Amino acid sequence: MPANRQILLRARPTGPVGPELFETKTTETPPVGEGEVLVRTLYLSIDPTIRGWIERDTYLPRIELGAVVRSAGAAVVVESRNPKFAVGDRVFAMPGWQEYAVLGERDRPTKIPPGIELRDALSVFGVTGMTAYFGLHDIGKPKPGETVVVSGAAGATGSIVGQLARAHGCRAVGIAGGPAKCKWLTEELGFDAAIDYKAEDVSKRLGEACPQGIDVFFDNVGGPILDAALARLALRGRVVLCGAISQYEDLSKAYAPKNYMNLISKRGRMEGFIILDYAARFAEGAMAVGALIAQGKLKHRTTVVDGLEHAPEALMRLFSGDHEGKLMVRVAES
Amino acid sequence: MPANRQILLRARPTGPVGPELFETKTTETPPVGEGEVLVRTLYLSIDPTIRGWIERDTYLPRIELGAVVRSAGAAVVVESRNPKFAVGDRVFAMPGWQEYAVLGERDRPTKIPPGIELRDALSVFGVTGMTAYFGLHDIGKPKPGETVVVSGAAGATGSIVGQLARAHGCRAVGIAGGPAKCKWLTEELGFDAAIDYKAEDVSKRLGEACPQGIDVFFDNVGGPILDAALARLALRGRVVLCGAISQYEDLSKAYAPKNYMNLISKRGRMEGFIILDYAARFAEGAMAVGALIAQGKLKHRTTVVDGLEHAPEALMRLFSGDHEGKLMVRVAES
Repeated sequence: MPANRQILLRARPTGPVGPELFETKTTETPPVGEGEVLVRTLYLSIDPTIRGWIERDTYLPRIELGAVVRSAGAAVVVESRNPKFAVGDRVFAMPGWQEYAVLGERDRPTKIPPGIELRDALSVFGVTGMTAYFGLHDIGKPKPGETVVVSGAAGATGSIVGQLARAHGCRAVGIAGGPAKCKWLTEELGFDAAIDYKAEDVSKRLGEACPQGIDVFFDNVGGPILDAALARLALRGRVVLCGAISQYEDLSKAYAPKNYMNLISKRGRMEGFIILDYAARFAEGAMAVGALIAQGKLKHRTTVVDGLEHAPEALMRLFSGDHEGKLMVRVAES
Repeated sequence: MPANRQILLRARPTGPVGPELFETKTTETPPVGEGEVLVRTLYLSIDPTIRGWIERDTYLPRIELGAVVRSAGAAVVVESRNPKFAVGDRVFAMPGWQEYAVLGERDRPTKIPPGIELRDALSVFGVTGMTAYFGLHDIGKPKPGETVVVSGAAGATGSIVGQLARAHGCRAVGIAGGPAKCKWLTEELGFDAAIDYKAEDVSKRLGEACPQGIDVFFDNVGGPILDAALARLALRGRVVLCGAISQYEDLSKAYAPKNYMNLISKRGRMEGFIILDYAARFAEGAMAVGALIAQGKLKHRTTVVDGLEHAPEALMRLFSGDHEGKLMVRVAES
């Protein structure tokens, strides 16, 4: 059996994530039981939710100290004792931050069909794209002609949300950090407007960009940006709570949205969701996303960091905003 | 024409409501135009929403300085130039803080049938009861067996919410101020538990009273109580935002709910509503409430303050909690 390099959780964060929270260990790959497969990790999906998992119980139990860091990713089957999978099959699963993993039926590995690039499988066709699709349509319920605002708009999920909104006949307004990201949103992705939260007065610019108010606010960021959006909600506006990346690094100092009371006079709704609940409908999401890609209506970017050992650093980059689109780590090419 | 005593808005509040915000004036009653009726005010409904109306634009434009204070109430027709109303008919309308008002079709006066006490017409059968019914069922959507928690539970709306929840087969937990109110909830109204927020640790007691979490939180109060409830939300829990009476007196210092992020991991929903939107369905609400009263399953209390001149003081009592159930002002008996 090949040696298996792993990154384990060594300590829990009390603030920003740093390298001291992790340690590397090399073990033997475990034996493959009946009904299981051994996979080699190819790409790891670096997602904000990992920040929650290493700190505390959320919608999943927190990662134990000393355990491999939980992570979604793409992998290839190198040994199979499950008749549904052959050696060479590529799968989407939760391999974790390690080179090899043994997956059983309960891990629900999903085959990635030939012809799909792994970068796409982990972004637009992966949890990121599904999060954008189901969050926007099932929670936000936009109607053509309505105004959809998304925060973290140049991020993996946000950039897809805006394009899905445009494809649905909505106006799309993105909030992102820096002129380069904003330019990408309006000039390449077709957003109707972009707001640079690092340089502009978000509340004022929301008023200008959304003269009829915000019908759907898709929030990836939380904090003062959420508060500004709540103040600009249109009648019966909806706030989709996808994440709050600005707040994860220190929940004890979490910024609370005082304008929540506007939900009363505007008859508004603020609702959270967890994409795992939609797993049974991912085929629907993949078809919707695939059709838009085929029509040239859905573009995306990925930032790839090479080497398993750089996974902690990649997680840190996720919070600094120093990346474009979907952030992933390449562990092996095949 | 009779003289018409009125209470006008003289200044806007910047903190707690005081008598200096109002002034009394006596004018002549205006002439009654074609299609209009002249009514004499009998009872005024003293509602938290008036605090918003005198300060700022909400779901209705704010009350102009120098104008009669807007208020719901019950009145009797004393002159009619509208064939739908006869002298002596009692109506529910928005007469405002004055002895007489002229109402047109656009004011939509609603007849109060003979046999209904005015106190009931303004409470259980009025906006208060409708707020409880539609807020609980249309926004909260409780299922039998679920746990419903209501804040301001001894108030006009809250006390009805808890009883409606019980009648629907739910567990009802009330949060109120003081042992007398709590005793009334559990011993007379049939609440399963009551929490005295003035004497008890609300978060801890919510954990004890709702071991499976809160399925529906009907919030009349806002502030730290809302935050405590958000932290105890059950999976797919719903927060009905009816009001935030603890916050209305100084919105600049409004307490923001930091635990809103729990809506994400719990797939929760927080939604506001305005009862005026349900006007077309009040008959449904009145039937539901009436049936429960007939079965002895819905009790309520009213606190009546005598004399139009005491309306400002009554509004102040609403915020001090120094009243039981529905608070109203008797302007005239018939």
